Amino acid sequence: MKITLAAIKEAQSKIAPYIIKTPLIRTYALDEILGCEVYLKLENMQVTHSFKYRGAINKMLNLTLKEKQNGIVTASSGNHGKAVAHAAKQLGIEATVVVPNTASPFKIAAIEQYGATVVECDVTERFAVSERLAEVHGYTLFHPYDDEEIIVGQGTVGLEILSQHPALDTVIVPTSGGGLLAGLLTAIKQSNTDIRILGAEPYNMPRYSESLTQKKRVKVESRNTIADALVTAQPGKLNFPIVQTYADGMLKVADDATIKAVELMLIESKILSEPSGAIGPAAILDGAYSPALVEKVCFVISGGNIGLEQLSKLGAAH
Amino acid sequence: MKITLAAIKEAQSKIAPYIIKTPLIRTYALDEILGCEVYLKLENMQVTHSFKYRGAINKMLNLTLKEKQNGIVTASSGNHGKAVAHAAKQLGIEATVVVPNTASPFKIAAIEQYGATVVECDVTERFAVSERLAEVHGYTLFHPYDDEEIIVGQGTVGLEILSQHPALDTVIVPTSGGGLLAGLLTAIKQSNTDIRILGAEPYNMPRYSESLTQKKRVKVESRNTIADALVTAQPGKLNFPIVQTYADGMLKVADDATIKAVELMLIESKILSEPSGAIGPAAILDGAYSPALVEKVCFVISGGNIGLEQLSKLGAAH
Repeated sequence: MKITLAAIKEAQSKIAPYIIKTPLIRTYALDEILGCEVYLKLENMQVTHSFKYRGAINKMLNLTLKEKQNGIVTASSGNHGKAVAHAAKQLGIEATVVVPNTASPFKIAAIEQYGATVVECDVTERFAVSERLAEVHGYTLFHPYDDEEIIVGQGTVGLEILSQHPALDTVIVPTSGGGLLAGLLTAIKQSNTDIRILGAEPYNMPRYSESLTQKKRVKVESRNTIADALVTAQPGKLNFPIVQTYADGMLKVADDATIKAVELMLIESKILSEPSGAIGPAAILDGAYSPALVEKVCFVISGGNIGLEQLSKLGAAH
Repeated sequence: MKITLAAIKEAQSKIAPYIIKTPLIRTYALDEILGCEVYLKLENMQVTHSFKYRGAINKMLNLTLKEKQNGIVTASSGNHGKAVAHAAKQLGIEATVVVPNTASPFKIAAIEQYGATVVECDVTERFAVSERLAEVHGYTLFHPYDDEEIIVGQGTVGLEILSQHPALDTVIVPTSGGGLLAGLLTAIKQSNTDIRILGAEPYNMPRYSESLTQKKRVKVESRNTIADALVTAQPGKLNFPIVQTYADGMLKVADDATIKAVELMLIESKILSEPSGAIGPAAILDGAYSPALVEKVCFVISGGNIGLEQLSKLGAAH
């Protein structure tokens, strides 16, 4: 499978029975604050509450019978882990999820509830451990972003946006390894639209901004960010050239603005986003992008996995 | 103006430039929990974050020039007060809002931010005070629900629901004085659909359940409920006969279920509702209504005015 518009369209048909066509809504409450016409693509309402389910179920459906029988493995205690565990359960495939032994019991329970086997190990060894498990047991490894079928699955967000509101001016996409951004760029840019597409990443981990400047895949220092789903240190091998070719820009966003955006999304728009999902509106609050007043800007709200407790802490921190 | 489908259609055109046509979304995350196909009409995204703005702006637009010049008065520290204050500001009309001296500074500030004059008085005297102000200053009194133009304005929610999803089986409507329910019943039932329409009210203040049983407007004891926008003691004079004629049932809902529904709406559906707005889903959690698995049930999420602090308390209480 190549990463093309045609492949994304094929994936869209294939995954349709499993995913939610999430709402794309016009929210007026943020227009004045953000200085543009605000649209939200609500992937926080996707199955497992993030866009990650699209890629996971697409790759799962494309496994051969033998691969399905052997089972799969992935390393993630976050949105990708949940998505893979649930997709495996849906298709009756055995899944092993490797998580760092620092992961919260809450997150581990969320993965176990989908019936996956959880293997704990030191955080620095999680990729090595999952690769070893793949080798020993013949599991298929599910990489979170550097994988054609994963990228093509995420790209279906782009097709949905085009079918729901083709007249947008700009789409802003939360970015880490670049699976969502690369898929969405392929879907929208190869559809010959002139919609502007921007990535948004944490100021503390600007792996794409740095790499685009240096014209090669730079690995940045791992640092803390409130956007805890956007912590990949280096752009994906498959993703980077697509972003280089198609993206109209990359925005760096400070954590303060991201916390403020979560709060504004909730109090003004009545939508619950996790911090990583709110990094798009945050980019505008932070001054990283200044839209025109009549610009139709669609923010991809990539995930909604945040509990009441974390939410209270954000409110208090502010 | 009479309360008819024709009047509601006329109001719809008139208020269109001022209100938000709020999203009606399909939310899959609650299907299993509620045992039906779940739709949400998101009036928590309306201007001033509740449906109340529809009635307020409709009545405001229908004032004579002299009435506009004289100004208006209302008694409410809640959603109606905010809606009236904002509608008045939009049209450049002077507004006075009478609030009990027990109202929180937060609520008073919210009304003052719309430029209204706030008058504080003892909670038992707020209606008497607003009537006296109306008499002395020639203000037009804005009753929160027992008013033809208010009811007709709220009825536009019903027309929108029909235009957005005519194939619903059931609509469940938060009910207090009955303005929203009476308007919505008129709009939908007079459109000759066979959509089932149910009201939902707090178990502690079952003014409509009692009145429908006794076939007359009963005044119930004022008691505490978490659904703090649904605390009217008696059905409205204009509203009651409409509810008697058209409503397919009235559901009584315990506060525990309402608190649980706010949490589920937020964590599963990613939508922030105030407790009163979540009383529809709560009615099903509470066993007051048992839909069929394939039943398309639309819950009118009537308002979203709840702060992070109150939300944390709800979560902790649970």
